[in-house]
Amino acid sequence: MADVVNRRITLAAHPVGFPKDSDFGLVEDTVSEPAEGELLLQTLYLSLDPYMRGRISEARSYAAGVEVGQTMVGGTVSSVVVSHHPKYKSGDIVLSYSGWQDYELSNGQGLHKLDPVHGPNPISTALGVMGMPGLTGYVGLLDIGQPQSGETVVVSSAAGAVGSVVGQIARLKGCNTVGIAGTAEKCRYTIEEFGFETCLNYNDDDFDSQLKVACPDGIDIYFENVGGKVFDAAYNLMNDGGRIPVCGMISRYNNTNLPDGPDTLPRLMRTVLTRRLLIRGYIVTDHSDRLGAFLSDMSGWLKNGQIRYREDITDGLKNAVAAFQGLLSGRNTGKAVVRVSTES
Amino acid sequence: MADVVNRRITLAAHPVGFPKDSDFGLVEDTVSEPAEGELLLQTLYLSLDPYMRGRISEARSYAAGVEVGQTMVGGTVSSVVVSHHPKYKSGDIVLSYSGWQDYELSNGQGLHKLDPVHGPNPISTALGVMGMPGLTGYVGLLDIGQPQSGETVVVSSAAGAVGSVVGQIARLKGCNTVGIAGTAEKCRYTIEEFGFETCLNYNDDDFDSQLKVACPDGIDIYFENVGGKVFDAAYNLMNDGGRIPVCGMISRYNNTNLPDGPDTLPRLMRTVLTRRLLIRGYIVTDHSDRLGAFLSDMSGWLKNGQIRYREDITDGLKNAVAAFQGLLSGRNTGKAVVRVSTES
Repeated sequence: MADVVNRRITLAAHPVGFPKDSDFGLVEDTVSEPAEGELLLQTLYLSLDPYMRGRISEARSYAAGVEVGQTMVGGTVSSVVVSHHPKYKSGDIVLSYSGWQDYELSNGQGLHKLDPVHGPNPISTALGVMGMPGLTGYVGLLDIGQPQSGETVVVSSAAGAVGSVVGQIARLKGCNTVGIAGTAEKCRYTIEEFGFETCLNYNDDDFDSQLKVACPDGIDIYFENVGGKVFDAAYNLMNDGGRIPVCGMISRYNNTNLPDGPDTLPRLMRTVLTRRLLIRGYIVTDHSDRLGAFLSDMSGWLKNGQIRYREDITDGLKNAVAAFQGLLSGRNTGKAVVRVSTES
Repeated sequence: MADVVNRRITLAAHPVGFPKDSDFGLVEDTVSEPAEGELLLQTLYLSLDPYMRGRISEARSYAAGVEVGQTMVGGTVSSVVVSHHPKYKSGDIVLSYSGWQDYELSNGQGLHKLDPVHGPNPISTALGVMGMPGLTGYVGLLDIGQPQSGETVVVSSAAGAVGSVVGQIARLKGCNTVGIAGTAEKCRYTIEEFGFETCLNYNDDDFDSQLKVACPDGIDIYFENVGGKVFDAAYNLMNDGGRIPVCGMISRYNNTNLPDGPDTLPRLMRTVLTRRLLIRGYIVTDHSDRLGAFLSDMSGWLKNGQIRYREDITDGLKNAVAAFQGLLSGRNTGKAVVRVSTES
């Protein structure tokens, strides 16, 4: 294997504010031969997700962060090139966490074999609607939000991989669904493709009053993915007993300072108290006990055409940084995935 | 009955900031004879509670507010003076919501007869440890907080009617209990009478660092009753998966403006996200399905001496306003109750 070159994208510096090109590096080295019990994986698809911004910060986040010089982390769909591991053979397709690189030497830990017949199809959806983002939406809406028929569900980042799943499941549960996205184009396809009843552009000057008009009966569930002014507008409209699953707050990931005053925290807490709101942050990796139910439900919904999805596929590992920057700027349309190499 | 005078304390003006004497009025009128199906109640004990500050604000709160000119609302223990109601007879003692007055004409709705033998003893505890404040602590800690043995539970207003119950139940569940109160004297009896392992005075300059030292393993449950700087210090120490039942925020009830910046709301929400916190506001009246379990558990705990309580009884309806102002200033020691008249 000494002649097989592995390209990997590393963290060159912890970004301050929005990640710059110079915060990343490209390293080339050669791949070693897998030892007994190991296997060599080739990355087919790399998932790009908002949580990655947290991993490359210096501030405390869920998980151990990426240190300077280390390979960027990320979920992948990979094919087994060489296997000296009893459970895998050459040609198997696996869900892995190989990161931003062409190849990874693995001991088999944390891999999930994808069923070529009954598994996700296309296989890239194992990183999206049939994978972590799909489960994130499923758990956040159903377990934390607990939607009841007739309730109003507002979903931020409605055009995204998680938000589009939340809105569609909420609709299946008989809820009124209001999406929020950052461009008129995203709003259009959120309604047309994902079946939201309406979708508002948070960049509109009168966004706050639009949201009020779109929710004449108030908001029962606000699915939080963005933070900032969208959160402020939404929590003020919550009904008594409303629920706010907190999945992310992409609008603030690159902020280094708190906004100017006044300090609105007491206003939020007063609203929590008087309207008996539930706010709950969560991370999907705490909820892997729900994976079986999710895969079963979601594959049924996809088969019946009750849930649709959209992927935004970028070709080539060398374009991963630009695609990640696009994701953080909201320029992607659908689940952001990098096609690192083509299935042979 | 034309010669029986009823004194009642009314709202003279919605308070702006801290309630002044002039925000209240005293009206005297005569009591009419109860009609068929009605009964005349005489107030023995009136409960004073922090939630009343919300009811007399102009801003939206849980329940319909008290309008100018109306009698102040409040829970009472009352005796039946005259009954033309089939379910009550003269001399019965009832839990009522008669408000800040000597007498009330009732149609029987919302009354609960207190058992003279097996009921709360002394009867004033029907307004405290065996009543609404006790149930508030019980539901907030057990149902929302879900304490596990070995966890650290921090309780604000620890010397108060609700907080003292929360801390003692948490201790019974095997938790480490840290109280927070506003004077050294309250801290002392929170430890000595209510068995908290430690209690901190939030007026100490180094309160934040004291809290950190008192919680070497972080905080699993923070029972929120005060808001302000106590909340800020506590949420920063929450462990992953921590729970914050929001019962009140007495430190902010009289504030008319938001504090100066920076706006710390995004910092709170980031903490909610990265540490997967649950924050849930609640009001005890939504949880009356838990009353039976509460009364059964609490009467057992009281009988066994596992839970203790303290009452702060003020004599005379005319002193109710001053006692209420004392409550909002944290000057009471124990459940604030006004003895309006003596049992005959």
